[in-house]
Amino acid sequence: MAHDEFDVIVIGAGPAGENVASRVVRGGLTAAVVENRLAGGECSYWACIPSKTLLRPLALAAEVSRVPGMRLAAVDVDAVLRRRNEAISELDDTGQVGWIEGLPARFIRGWGRLTSSRSVAVRRPDGQELTLSARHAIVLATGSTPIIPDIPGLAAARPWTNREITGADVIPERLIIVGGGAVACEMAQAMRGHGARQVTVLARGSLLRRAEPFAGELLAETMLDAGIDVRLNAQVARVDRPEPGGEVTVHLADASCVEANEILVAAGRKAASAGLGLEAVGLTPGSWLNVDDSLRAVDCPGGCLYAVGDLNGRSLLTHMGKYQARVCGDVLVARARGTDDTALSLRDHAHAYGAPYVLFTDPQVCSVGLTEAGARARGLRLRAVEYDLAGLAGTYVLGDNVRGRAKIVVDEDRRVVVGATFVGPGTAELLHAATVAVTSGITLDQLWHAVPAFPTVSEVWLRMLEAYGL
Amino acid sequence: MAHDEFDVIVIGAGPAGENVASRVVRGGLTAAVVENRLAGGECSYWACIPSKTLLRPLALAAEVSRVPGMRLAAVDVDAVLRRRNEAISELDDTGQVGWIEGLPARFIRGWGRLTSSRSVAVRRPDGQELTLSARHAIVLATGSTPIIPDIPGLAAARPWTNREITGADVIPERLIIVGGGAVACEMAQAMRGHGARQVTVLARGSLLRRAEPFAGELLAETMLDAGIDVRLNAQVARVDRPEPGGEVTVHLADASCVEANEILVAAGRKAASAGLGLEAVGLTPGSWLNVDDSLRAVDCPGGCLYAVGDLNGRSLLTHMGKYQARVCGDVLVARARGTDDTALSLRDHAHAYGAPYVLFTDPQVCSVGLTEAGARARGLRLRAVEYDLAGLAGTYVLGDNVRGRAKIVVDEDRRVVVGATFVGPGTAELLHAATVAVTSGITLDQLWHAVPAFPTVSEVWLRMLEAYGL
Repeated sequence: MAHDEFDVIVIGAGPAGENVASRVVRGGLTAAVVENRLAGGECSYWACIPSKTLLRPLALAAEVSRVPGMRLAAVDVDAVLRRRNEAISELDDTGQVGWIEGLPARFIRGWGRLTSSRSVAVRRPDGQELTLSARHAIVLATGSTPIIPDIPGLAAARPWTNREITGADVIPERLIIVGGGAVACEMAQAMRGHGARQVTVLARGSLLRRAEPFAGELLAETMLDAGIDVRLNAQVARVDRPEPGGEVTVHLADASCVEANEILVAAGRKAASAGLGLEAVGLTPGSWLNVDDSLRAVDCPGGCLYAVGDLNGRSLLTHMGKYQARVCGDVLVARARGTDDTALSLRDHAHAYGAPYVLFTDPQVCSVGLTEAGARARGLRLRAVEYDLAGLAGTYVLGDNVRGRAKIVVDEDRRVVVGATFVGPGTAELLHAATVAVTSGITLDQLWHAVPAFPTVSEVWLRMLEAYGL
Repeated sequence: MAHDEFDVIVIGAGPAGENVASRVVRGGLTAAVVENRLAGGECSYWACIPSKTLLRPLALAAEVSRVPGMRLAAVDVDAVLRRRNEAISELDDTGQVGWIEGLPARFIRGWGRLTSSRSVAVRRPDGQELTLSARHAIVLATGSTPIIPDIPGLAAARPWTNREITGADVIPERLIIVGGGAVACEMAQAMRGHGARQVTVLARGSLLRRAEPFAGELLAETMLDAGIDVRLNAQVARVDRPEPGGEVTVHLADASCVEANEILVAAGRKAASAGLGLEAVGLTPGSWLNVDDSLRAVDCPGGCLYAVGDLNGRSLLTHMGKYQARVCGDVLVARARGTDDTALSLRDHAHAYGAPYVLFTDPQVCSVGLTEAGARARGLRLRAVEYDLAGLAGTYVLGDNVRGRAKIVVDEDRRVVVGATFVGPGTAELLHAATVAVTSGITLDQLWHAVPAFPTVSEVWLRMLEAYGL
C-alpha cells in the first residue's frame, strides 16, 4: 500500500476543487487532487457547458426572429450536438488532468474517503488502495447529485437527470420534465427548440420559485408561446414505465396523465457526501457540509477539514464554488504559513449578499442579492422599483416585441441596492453591474453618476433610478 | 410681436434639451423648448437610432456565423431600411413634441437666438418673430454639426455626413469614407454589410485613435476580413466630383486615387453655436460653450446661461448629454428656489472620470474612463492588465473564433480601476459594471467579491483581477 503526504488534499476535481489546488500551489504548498470520475466536474461535462452549448443557437434564433429582414434556415441539430460533444471534450478529461498536473499538483484517479481528519484512502479504478496524509488540510469538493423525489414508480422508471439530457444524442420526441427550476426551464426550451414534438413541464408551484415572481411568469409565457406544455402546481402521484427505456406515463393528483418517451427529473440537488467517510470525523454522511466564511467545516475536531462548492450547500453555482475555492485556497496558504488569515480576501463575503445567477433561457433570467420577499423577510425597510424593458431604446434597436422586466430592491436605511433581477435580452452581461453594486454597497447617489451608454439595455439602470425619484 | 415669459428657456430639443425641460418642470418651473428642426434631435433621426437599427442585423448575422448548425438567408435590405424608417418615425416628430407638451412645457418651432442673457428671439417657420424672456435661465442645447475638413474640392463635392448615410434609401455601390472614428467604422460596416461592393476607409492615423490601440487594431482586422479597404495614415490631397451627385475621385498624397459613387465625411464635429446670438452675451459664435460642473457657461455675465449636450464640448454622446441635462435641470430648480445647490447630484461628476461609450461595430468596442496612455499623461502610478476574450468559457459558448480583448487600467495608489476597455461580443452590456466601478471608486479588493456568473463574458473581470495578482 503506497503512502503519500501533501500539504493539502482535495477530493473532487470539479471547478471548485481545481481552483483550491491552483491557489494553494500558487501559495507554495503541495496538493493532491482525487477524482473518481472526470477532472472538470459536473459543470464541464454534464451541466453549464453542454447546456449553454445546446441553448446558444436557440437564443440566437429567438433574437433573429425579432429582427425584420432576417430569416434563419432550420437549425442543424446534428451540428449542434457535434459542437456539444466538442464542448464536453468528448468526455475525455486529458486536458483538465494536464492542467492540474501542470500547476503542478498530483492528480489521483479514484474514490477518496476520509479515514481521519488528516488522512484519505483512495480506491483506484484497478482496485488498489492508496493512503494519503495531509499536513495542513483536506478540502472536500465533491459537489451535488440530483434528487429523485420519493414518488411511486419514479426511481424505478430510471428517469433522466441533468447528465443524460445534456448528453443526449437523440432529442426525445415527447418529454416530461418534473421540476420548475433552472434546469427544468433551460432543458424544456433546449429540447423543444431542437425538435421535441411534445414537452410537458410539471412544476410543483410556479416556475423559478426563488426568483422575483415576474421572472417565472415571463418565462412561462415564452414557453407556452413556444408550444411547451407548462403545468404549474402540478402534483405527480405515480409514474409507470413498464419497459425499461420505453413509454412512460405520469399520473397526476388530479387524475389526469401524461405520456412520453422520456422523463427528466430536475427537482433539486442533494450533497454528494455519501461514501466520503464523514463518519470518521464525526459528521453525517449524506448531509451538506456546514462551513464558516473561511470555508472550514464547523463541528469537525481538529479544524483542518474544509468544503467548497455545491457540497457546502451555500450556493449551487459553478462561479460561487470557484469563488469559495479562491478564498479557501488563500486561507489555507495563510494558515499553513501562520500569517494573518483575516484579510478581506480571506472570507466568503459574497454569500451573505445573495449569489448572482444567470439562466440562459429565452428570455434570460438574471439576478443577484435579495428578492423583495427575501429582503422583507430580513426585516429591511425597503423600496422596490420595476421597469418594463420594452420601454427602452436599447431594446427597440435589438428588435421587435422584446419582452423583459427589471427590478431593484433598495435598502432605504442605507440607500443601497440589495437585490436586482433582470429578465430579457442582454441581461446576462448586464447583471455584473448589479453584482458590483450589491456587493460593494454603493449608494444610489453614487450610482446616479454611473451613466449607462445609449442605446443599451443597461439604460434600464437610469430608468429605475429615475422611477425611484432621483 | 408676441412676448412670453418662462422660468427656463431651452434652445434645442434633442435628448439633452428635452431632459432639461423635463427636470425643471418636475421641479415646479415653467419651460419653453425652442427647436428649428425636429424635436428629438440628431440622436433620434440621424445618429444613434438609425445607425443602430442598420447595424443590428449585421451584428446578429456575425454572431450566427460563429455558431455551427446555423445558417442565415441573405438579409433583406429593404426590410431593414423600412425598419430604420420606422425607428426614425419617418422623420415626423409629432410624438416627441407631444412628449414635451405633456410635461407640460411649451414647444416652439423656430430658430432661437439670444438677444440678451435673459431673452431669446425666435424666428418661426412662417417668418414671424417671437420674443421670450427667461426668469431664471436660458439653456443652450443645440448640439454639434459635422466638420468638413479643408481639403480642396471636398466641400464642393457635397459629401454625405452622418445625416445622409443613416438616412440612405439606397446603399451606395462604391463608397469612400473620410475618417477613422466611430461613425466611419460603424457606417463602413453598415454599408458593406448591406451590399456596398466597395467601401474604402481613409483614416488619417489608426482607427479609433482615442481608444486603447488594440481596439482599432481588432476592428481593422475584422473590417479587412469583411472586404473593407481600410487605409491607415491616409492623407487626402484633393477631391474631384465634376457632376453633382456623380462619380467622385479622391486623390491621396501618395499620388494614388480612389473612385466611388459617394463620399462620406466622418471627421469629427464642431459646436452648433453659430447664429445663436452668442455675441449678445459676450461669447464667440461658432465655439464650444465652456461650462462649469453645474453646466453654467463661464465667462458669461449674469450667470444665467447654461449649455448641455454636445454644445459644451465635454462629451459628444447622447447619454452624457442627457446626464448633464438632469444635473443642469436640478441645479436650475435649486437655484430658482434658492435652496442648497451643492449636493452630489447637482454637479457633472462623470465627466472627470471619462465618459462611457459603446461602438456597435463587429466586434463591439466599449470603454469608460482613462486609457493607459491617458492615465500616464495624468501622471498616475498605474498598472494595466489585458485579457484575451477567446480564453473564456463565456465566449466559447457564444460560438467559434470569437475575437476580443479586455483591459483595465489600475491606479496603484488607490487600487481602483480608472479605465476599462472591452472589445468583443456581449461587451455593450458588460461595460456598465466598469462604469459603476470607475465612477464609484470601488477598490480591487471590493471587486474581488463581485463574482461574475459562469459562463458569461463578464468572467473576464475575474480573469483580469487574477492576472493582476489577486
